[in-house]
Amino acid sequence: MMSFTAYILDVVSDTVYPARITIENGIYKEVSPITVNERTTVDVDGLMIPGFIDSHIHIESSMITPAQFARIAVRHGTTGVVCDPHEIANVMGIYGVEAMIENAKQVPFNFYFTAPSCVPATVFETSGATLNADDVEYLLKKDEIVALAEMMNFPGVINGDEEVHRKLKLAHVYGKPIDGHAPLVSREDLDKYLEPGISTDHECSNVLEALEKKLKGVKIMVRDGSSAMDMEGLFNMGEGKSNIENPEQLGLIYRDVFESKIYSPLFDFIVSDDKHPDDLIKGHLNLSIKKAVGFGIDILKAINMVTINPAYHYNLNCGAIVEGAQADYVIVDSLTDLNIQKTYIGGECVFDGENVLFDAPEVEAHNTINASKKTPDDFDIHYDGKECEVNVIECIDGDLLTKKATAKLKTKNGVVQADLIQDVLKIAVVERYGGNTVANAFVKGFGLKKGAIASSVAHDSHNIIVVGYTSEEMAQAVNQVIDNMGGIAIYSEDFIESLPLPIAGLMSNKDAFDVAEKVATLHDMAAALGCQLKSPFMTMAFMALLVIPSIKISDKGLFDGDAFEFMDVIIN
Amino acid sequence: MMSFTAYILDVVSDTVYPARITIENGIYKEVSPITVNERTTVDVDGLMIPGFIDSHIHIESSMITPAQFARIAVRHGTTGVVCDPHEIANVMGIYGVEAMIENAKQVPFNFYFTAPSCVPATVFETSGATLNADDVEYLLKKDEIVALAEMMNFPGVINGDEEVHRKLKLAHVYGKPIDGHAPLVSREDLDKYLEPGISTDHECSNVLEALEKKLKGVKIMVRDGSSAMDMEGLFNMGEGKSNIENPEQLGLIYRDVFESKIYSPLFDFIVSDDKHPDDLIKGHLNLSIKKAVGFGIDILKAINMVTINPAYHYNLNCGAIVEGAQADYVIVDSLTDLNIQKTYIGGECVFDGENVLFDAPEVEAHNTINASKKTPDDFDIHYDGKECEVNVIECIDGDLLTKKATAKLKTKNGVVQADLIQDVLKIAVVERYGGNTVANAFVKGFGLKKGAIASSVAHDSHNIIVVGYTSEEMAQAVNQVIDNMGGIAIYSEDFIESLPLPIAGLMSNKDAFDVAEKVATLHDMAAALGCQLKSPFMTMAFMALLVIPSIKISDKGLFDGDAFEFMDVIIN
Repeated sequence: MMSFTAYILDVVSDTVYPARITIENGIYKEVSPITVNERTTVDVDGLMIPGFIDSHIHIESSMITPAQFARIAVRHGTTGVVCDPHEIANVMGIYGVEAMIENAKQVPFNFYFTAPSCVPATVFETSGATLNADDVEYLLKKDEIVALAEMMNFPGVINGDEEVHRKLKLAHVYGKPIDGHAPLVSREDLDKYLEPGISTDHECSNVLEALEKKLKGVKIMVRDGSSAMDMEGLFNMGEGKSNIENPEQLGLIYRDVFESKIYSPLFDFIVSDDKHPDDLIKGHLNLSIKKAVGFGIDILKAINMVTINPAYHYNLNCGAIVEGAQADYVIVDSLTDLNIQKTYIGGECVFDGENVLFDAPEVEAHNTINASKKTPDDFDIHYDGKECEVNVIECIDGDLLTKKATAKLKTKNGVVQADLIQDVLKIAVVERYGGNTVANAFVKGFGLKKGAIASSVAHDSHNIIVVGYTSEEMAQAVNQVIDNMGGIAIYSEDFIESLPLPIAGLMSNKDAFDVAEKVATLHDMAAALGCQLKSPFMTMAFMALLVIPSIKISDKGLFDGDAFEFMDVIIN
Repeated sequence: MMSFTAYILDVVSDTVYPARITIENGIYKEVSPITVNERTTVDVDGLMIPGFIDSHIHIESSMITPAQFARIAVRHGTTGVVCDPHEIANVMGIYGVEAMIENAKQVPFNFYFTAPSCVPATVFETSGATLNADDVEYLLKKDEIVALAEMMNFPGVINGDEEVHRKLKLAHVYGKPIDGHAPLVSREDLDKYLEPGISTDHECSNVLEALEKKLKGVKIMVRDGSSAMDMEGLFNMGEGKSNIENPEQLGLIYRDVFESKIYSPLFDFIVSDDKHPDDLIKGHLNLSIKKAVGFGIDILKAINMVTINPAYHYNLNCGAIVEGAQADYVIVDSLTDLNIQKTYIGGECVFDGENVLFDAPEVEAHNTINASKKTPDDFDIHYDGKECEVNVIECIDGDLLTKKATAKLKTKNGVVQADLIQDVLKIAVVERYGGNTVANAFVKGFGLKKGAIASSVAHDSHNIIVVGYTSEEMAQAVNQVIDNMGGIAIYSEDFIESLPLPIAGLMSNKDAFDVAEKVATLHDMAAALGCQLKSPFMTMAFMALLVIPSIKISDKGLFDGDAFEFMDVIIN
């Protein structure tokens, strides 16, 4: 038992006051307001606030294990995450999810897992596993699982897919909320999507979208992550106003939000969704709160969005400094600067301002890359003629969307060649679950003048994806990834470098700083080869994400994301 | 049991969502988020928010009974008040407090009473009763009493007055919080004042004062009432900054408030303290919330200050729409306009948008005015000479403070005369508890050119106070008050008018509209006689409030509020 006095931020009554705090067995036993006088002061130097909770994140995107994630998160005042182990589930199924849970349990940090609802993401790709409704039920039974993870298959929900609806019903059976994911889904489609009880959404990119969902009963997660930053679109309010066809139908919240800018009640959570290692080392929700305040959100509202609100929604015994709750708290210098001085979980100090006071146990890495070494001819596209017209994936820097383009390309010995003038490079997805197939196509926008980059992080099935100038270089880069049991790699005649991600081809046992440093080196090398994308490996990883339009590639071929069917590479 | 769907404002998670509400025996049995779709909508047209709670008010200042107060408060969305029956206690003691409680119980409204701690306010006046520590204990034992009322006797606390400290200790014995009242008390004095566990203050008039108290553990009540409006000084922040001598001593909140204007956590409640009938009919906390929003306070923070925060502090089972709480709620058209559509208490509709659905039982009026009729010579001040110099109370419009002035006045037949040129009128306090004494003096600032105004509302002892031009007119006005068993009255050769307040000389059994209308008529008449004060009867009532400097009058004589002793009227 420990007892001390401190200024606390009370997120229930939205105020600060000095209090006596007694903690027993990791739980607040006493939280009593006290008075302080001129001569004495409270024991704690700084302000005691509840630890932050990220209510939607995929830890795999940080390329580190849960334990390593915890070690970096506590530096930023995060004491809990609601995490969807969707990526590892696509590679390793339930075994992967359980490995995450097992690793997470070994560190003093609150991991609240959700049961991945959409594995695989589509039938147009080869994944390492399938989670059917029985598998989902197996997970939902676990105490460590607090919700059914984001239901990304909105067409399946809307069109009454039986297996999808079985999963949704199971969440109700086990009394666990269902997270949503419904970008731009609206009107009657949204109604059908929500009907099974889906209660959150983190895909709103403009205030009108958030408003419609809010009115229909969805709790709004404002995303401030590495891949998507929606805060500006939501908190700035400017856009969307003119899109409203029948404002009167939007009901009473409409007036509050649009006529008077009383938008506080519109938003529920701030989440990161994906946090890449280079971003994660800089900060987490601590930075998001300050960013929100910069947009005019009240500091207490912003803090509520990452403390009491997630706790209330997911039924977690934390998120507020109140008697009976778990003693997860952070000492900050002030609300203004929000510098994290110390972090406590269950009453124990886990970060003392300098060092993290627990170690990250390693996850045993089993090779999940079941692919034979590749030869250059695996990446050749043959055409019988001097020149041909091809469909091209045109990527947009910092966006998951792609555009459909075409290009005329020359052949050499019957093999279609990349073209530096048009910036059309070769792209391929190498099946890595034992099938050994390779799908080849062309891509525009990467800017590489030579060499190749490859990665086993390729949403959502995480086959090996590669972009390069020549087949030879692509084979070299891919083989480097295979040798490393997964990871990201760059190959050129000038340098060869790689970050091994031996855990499911997604994560490293190393710490976030090491991983971030290696990612930075790889970025610098890609830039040295001519790539001007901010985050070339991330952009490449989303070239395989079929559910986002307009043109993508899976291990099975070039994919038309609008028609939702495969398409030919060579047009004529 | 009733069940319906509505958009609710959830003050715990600071958000709005549609929910299914089930109420049983006046308690929320179910509050579950639901989804709403394009074609259907929720049952309730409007937004359901928790009913407002005024955490510090003296109902007597509204000149109506608790039951009548309830009838007007529910029109404004108020469902509960923490009220200090301090005024009636000064007149009638415990019997008066119990009469208030008894009347309050007969209407469906949440009256949370506090036990008056300072009756009488000083030993320099005659009150109708004394509440010693035993009396306070008798009250603290009652379930209807939720706290020890504002401890106004800060010198008594600071100097260790035994009886005062006995009362404070009793609050701890009965586990009830202690309200404070410590205008401009600071530094070591504030420390001594707070030491016995006084936990609120509603007297802060500038942000620096609030800041010091907040840092020392006081919950800050921002006052927005008829007599005192501190919201501008507190929420506008502008002033006070330069007064800080040693900013670093103010600690961490200092930086948040002054460097970045993050002032949300500084304030806890919005209260009205006193609400005169003419103000009360216009609005209550509903208007205060809008006013706060106008000053830049987040709407959710403002609403928390009159819902969950008072409930949390005073341990009341209301203030939020959550399972297990009492179903006290209001339907508003929108947060923007905050127009009250309907008000419910314990699940029952008490205001349907047009009519209040309960009656106000009368309080039996016993005459508490024990004073013989007065004759003009009761108000004469004699001086043997043609002219004399006198001390004069100089009132300031809208302020409880007064200034010390002097004037040279002529005599007529040995009686000192008022002087219209200098605007020096006669003022007197008529003891009304059987002693039949009259204290006479002079006052500046009322502007009456003829006639007199009198009132049995005269803080805190509520003797009869009168201001007039001639002794004859003063006697007429006072006798009118005596005939009416108390109240306010105006007398001149042109008109005689009065508002009887037969309950303790403080309250009417009539409704707020009637009382407000009569007050307005009396104000118009006073203006017609030359008085330019905004609220002449209120200003007059505070001329007897000895605890506020610099010069006041009690039934025992002219009082020097700085030296805290009596002073002579005639100087030489």
